[in-house]
Amino acid sequence: MGNKLTGIAASSGIAIAKAFRMEVPDLSFDDHKVDNPDQEIAKLDEALAQSTSELEAIRKKTLDDLGEEHAEIFSAHLLVLRDPELIDPIKEKIKNDSANAAQALTEVTQMFVSMFESMDNEYMKERAADIRDVSRRVLAHVLGQPIVSLAEIQEEIILVADDLTPSDTAQLNRQFVLGFATDIGGRTSHSAIMARSMEIPAVVGTKSITDQVEAGTTIIIDGLDGEVIVDPTDQELDAYRKKQADFEEKKKEWAKLKNEPSVTADGVQVELVANIGTPEDLESVQNNGGEGVGLYRTEFLYMGRDELPTEEEQFEAYKKVTEEMGEKPVVIRTLDIGGDKELPYLDLPKEMNPFLGFRAIRLCLEKDDMFRVQLRALLRAGAFGNLKIMFPMIATLEEFRQAKAMLDDEKQKLKDEGVEVGENIEVGIMVEIPSTAVMAPQFAKEVDFFSIGTNDLIQYTMAADRMNEQVSYLYQPYNPAILNLVKMVIDASHQEGKWTGMCGEMAGDEIAIPLLVGLGLDEFSMSATSILPARSQLSKLTKKDAEEVAKEALRLNTSEEVESLVLKRFL
Amino acid sequence: MGNKLTGIAASSGIAIAKAFRMEVPDLSFDDHKVDNPDQEIAKLDEALAQSTSELEAIRKKTLDDLGEEHAEIFSAHLLVLRDPELIDPIKEKIKNDSANAAQALTEVTQMFVSMFESMDNEYMKERAADIRDVSRRVLAHVLGQPIVSLAEIQEEIILVADDLTPSDTAQLNRQFVLGFATDIGGRTSHSAIMARSMEIPAVVGTKSITDQVEAGTTIIIDGLDGEVIVDPTDQELDAYRKKQADFEEKKKEWAKLKNEPSVTADGVQVELVANIGTPEDLESVQNNGGEGVGLYRTEFLYMGRDELPTEEEQFEAYKKVTEEMGEKPVVIRTLDIGGDKELPYLDLPKEMNPFLGFRAIRLCLEKDDMFRVQLRALLRAGAFGNLKIMFPMIATLEEFRQAKAMLDDEKQKLKDEGVEVGENIEVGIMVEIPSTAVMAPQFAKEVDFFSIGTNDLIQYTMAADRMNEQVSYLYQPYNPAILNLVKMVIDASHQEGKWTGMCGEMAGDEIAIPLLVGLGLDEFSMSATSILPARSQLSKLTKKDAEEVAKEALRLNTSEEVESLVLKRFL
Repeated sequence: MGNKLTGIAASSGIAIAKAFRMEVPDLSFDDHKVDNPDQEIAKLDEALAQSTSELEAIRKKTLDDLGEEHAEIFSAHLLVLRDPELIDPIKEKIKNDSANAAQALTEVTQMFVSMFESMDNEYMKERAADIRDVSRRVLAHVLGQPIVSLAEIQEEIILVADDLTPSDTAQLNRQFVLGFATDIGGRTSHSAIMARSMEIPAVVGTKSITDQVEAGTTIIIDGLDGEVIVDPTDQELDAYRKKQADFEEKKKEWAKLKNEPSVTADGVQVELVANIGTPEDLESVQNNGGEGVGLYRTEFLYMGRDELPTEEEQFEAYKKVTEEMGEKPVVIRTLDIGGDKELPYLDLPKEMNPFLGFRAIRLCLEKDDMFRVQLRALLRAGAFGNLKIMFPMIATLEEFRQAKAMLDDEKQKLKDEGVEVGENIEVGIMVEIPSTAVMAPQFAKEVDFFSIGTNDLIQYTMAADRMNEQVSYLYQPYNPAILNLVKMVIDASHQEGKWTGMCGEMAGDEIAIPLLVGLGLDEFSMSATSILPARSQLSKLTKKDAEEVAKEALRLNTSEEVESLVLKRFL
Repeated sequence: MGNKLTGIAASSGIAIAKAFRMEVPDLSFDDHKVDNPDQEIAKLDEALAQSTSELEAIRKKTLDDLGEEHAEIFSAHLLVLRDPELIDPIKEKIKNDSANAAQALTEVTQMFVSMFESMDNEYMKERAADIRDVSRRVLAHVLGQPIVSLAEIQEEIILVADDLTPSDTAQLNRQFVLGFATDIGGRTSHSAIMARSMEIPAVVGTKSITDQVEAGTTIIIDGLDGEVIVDPTDQELDAYRKKQADFEEKKKEWAKLKNEPSVTADGVQVELVANIGTPEDLESVQNNGGEGVGLYRTEFLYMGRDELPTEEEQFEAYKKVTEEMGEKPVVIRTLDIGGDKELPYLDLPKEMNPFLGFRAIRLCLEKDDMFRVQLRALLRAGAFGNLKIMFPMIATLEEFRQAKAMLDDEKQKLKDEGVEVGENIEVGIMVEIPSTAVMAPQFAKEVDFFSIGTNDLIQYTMAADRMNEQVSYLYQPYNPAILNLVKMVIDASHQEGKWTGMCGEMAGDEIAIPLLVGLGLDEFSMSATSILPARSQLSKLTKKDAEEVAKEALRLNTSEEVESLVLKRFL
């Protein structure tokens, strides 16, 4: 039998091929002093220039293949290369200490990396990772050991590596790289997210794949169950080829549902829509039969730049999405910045608990100059399709009323200016704070719709930071507490003739879907690639059964009991 | 008319006297180099010794007057004075750079202060404040300008200062210092908390009192409404003397209720109990007619030391409280550490959102060696009175079951060892996480009681860090969402024949009390000094009216509407 390793299923599908081990270049150097510092500085500048042109190429490829959201990280890397606060001290060290370029580069960047890493702040830690990734590339050029580009792989392989940096992953050629397996990483690490976008099967976090496999050995990546089989037997190969064929079969079956409505076996229709980050994501929504956009995150418009986007820039982006979707609904969420998502140019205060801090609508209501620009862009784009506006992180009715008043105010101003605006734009809120779920009956009288943001709702309801591994056991989508809050929201909206959607990860989750159908959810918003599997799942269950199971689940004691119940009844 | 300043009512009561301005010693120095570093080091050592003996005296006085909880901070200050990581670099600077002691001290401590302040962590910021306070004292001694002790004030005055450090406040002689007013600070700043414990009227956060008042000017401190009147007219003096007399009258009336039961005007009895931090706090509980202890926070036993307290130490503390209260109930909460309360010797990981992190029961279930020691001490102390055990931060039924199983396990072990334990100890949970409030019907079948911890419940339900000023507007005890959750918990407990208490600040709040009576709360746990006013308030309202108002409040839209309703109907 082949050696079987268990990891985290990061991207679905089965891949079988020979292993290709990512080569780690020899980046060792000595600490010799130099006689001619100017020559050493020239060497550094040359390495910086080479790194810049490589990163620009990678950024361009990523933008074309995967869209702005993924390309973003390379804009950040390019900024590092241009940052005088990082580069000047390196040159000074060469000049003042006669250090060689490799050593000066390493010492200075190490200092910044340790400094940022020691800060108790995710944003700073990401900056540390960026500097590490970029400085490795520059060092390789300084040493004349350029990093082998994964773009040059020309035969079908499975990539095996300790970890893949975003720049590694972005260069993968989907034609030849059939899958990958890494020692470290989780379901939400950069490489995992990119693998799903590229639809390459991947298993991450295997802990020891690089120890267990040599280049050229045949391996199987099972991205469905999170397993890697090294040097499989013929029997195993047969079994996994069968599993691969079954999965391809399923995908074909799903593809047939692309233009079908989303209906249960007993004929109840719901809406399956997509979460997007940029207009470029629409292609995937259309390809996967999305019936609209349930969540357009507008943060990317604001990120990776030095100043706020103008009304015109925003209008163009919103209009593009709205027009392209035609009559299909497009729910656009206003700026949800703060928390783990910072904008350096807003100069927000450091907070002890950023997830419980000054973010999203709280920040927009205070910085209303900024907020009104977005509202104007949204109102104008609303004239070009079925646009709906959604406010994030609403905790009280006053906040909603304030935001709504600003919107009405800008609408009147635009009309007075003779500018065309969307006339019948629905205005709703994210329900992601427990108070708002409990107050749903009161909110339902004033909002046009709810969209339950389960990622945050779960973390607040359980009082557990979803990014903190030590309390990750408390991130429980199926906990009856969460289901009861979801029920309160849905019931309250229906009571007032309104609708409720869900735009957290839970909406596309196989276990959650029957429960949500049973609770009466109207709209399910998920990553585009989950839509067809969800439509297929829906077509095989009845609303009647789902209602019965949901009713039982609400009264169960634990998340585990709910999961077992759904597995027993539906899967 | 006298000049009226508005601030924050930090401690109730009215005081009228001449202003005494806290003198700020001249702590300036030059940067002269020294010829004899050893002599300079001896000067520093002398200053350290003087500061140590002063702080030991202050610590002792605080312990005697106010108890362990307040004395704690001076233990931390004494640790700073003994910390070689701080003191050694100062001496090295004197030796290596021939710096004078004042300069070496200032440069090194400044560096630590900036370092700690730049960290995104409340605990580190407090360390920065400690170092600043202590180093100022040492510097004063180095310069031969010892800080004037406020203990030496020998006439009736009102103290006016920019801010009061804990060491300032601790030295105040209640006989002569009738009240104080400061420019900065809030209701939960150290000086405010100490003022309430000392029962000295105080107004903090006036922003400009030090600019507006000269030494010797008569001023009035209105700690009821948070106002300071500088240089009052005779009419104003008369009016405030009347207000002062009325308040004294009220206090007398409250004092009469000391041994009375806590009953509404229509004869419904509830329990008014106290929150305590150490056995020393019991005196105040008895003096204020507390009917028991609703929350004994055990953290102080673990803080300000280098290692965990032993089973024996804990047993003695729990036994003392339990015995002293006799038949009256004593609810002891197991260790609630983590979040904003750290224990250096546990070496917990830094977290991005400590309030949503690895704390309280989450930590205890993992570090069960530590937890079981506490459980054994509690079980043994249970043999000496009416002790109840309460687990904090319970989010799921599994957590409660795990904790309960450990308790049962230790109980059996103790019995096998022939050790006497409490046989009928009630075991309950804090309800401070929204999931637990929503799941109250399920929990009520397994726990003996609930105690609602509103401080945390509000912050999680509103997703707003209660320590973060930028979102403090969302800390809304009267928000109908909170009231609805409270109702769910109370109803669920009564359904199963159990009882519900509340141990957050809300339980002693004048506006909240009628609502809580109306919702059916059984036990109100508050700071000891709030018990008699609460008993008086209860005696004047009927449960019937309270129920009617609570029912209406549950359906209102905003916190403000609820507050107005209560004010209109009851106050």
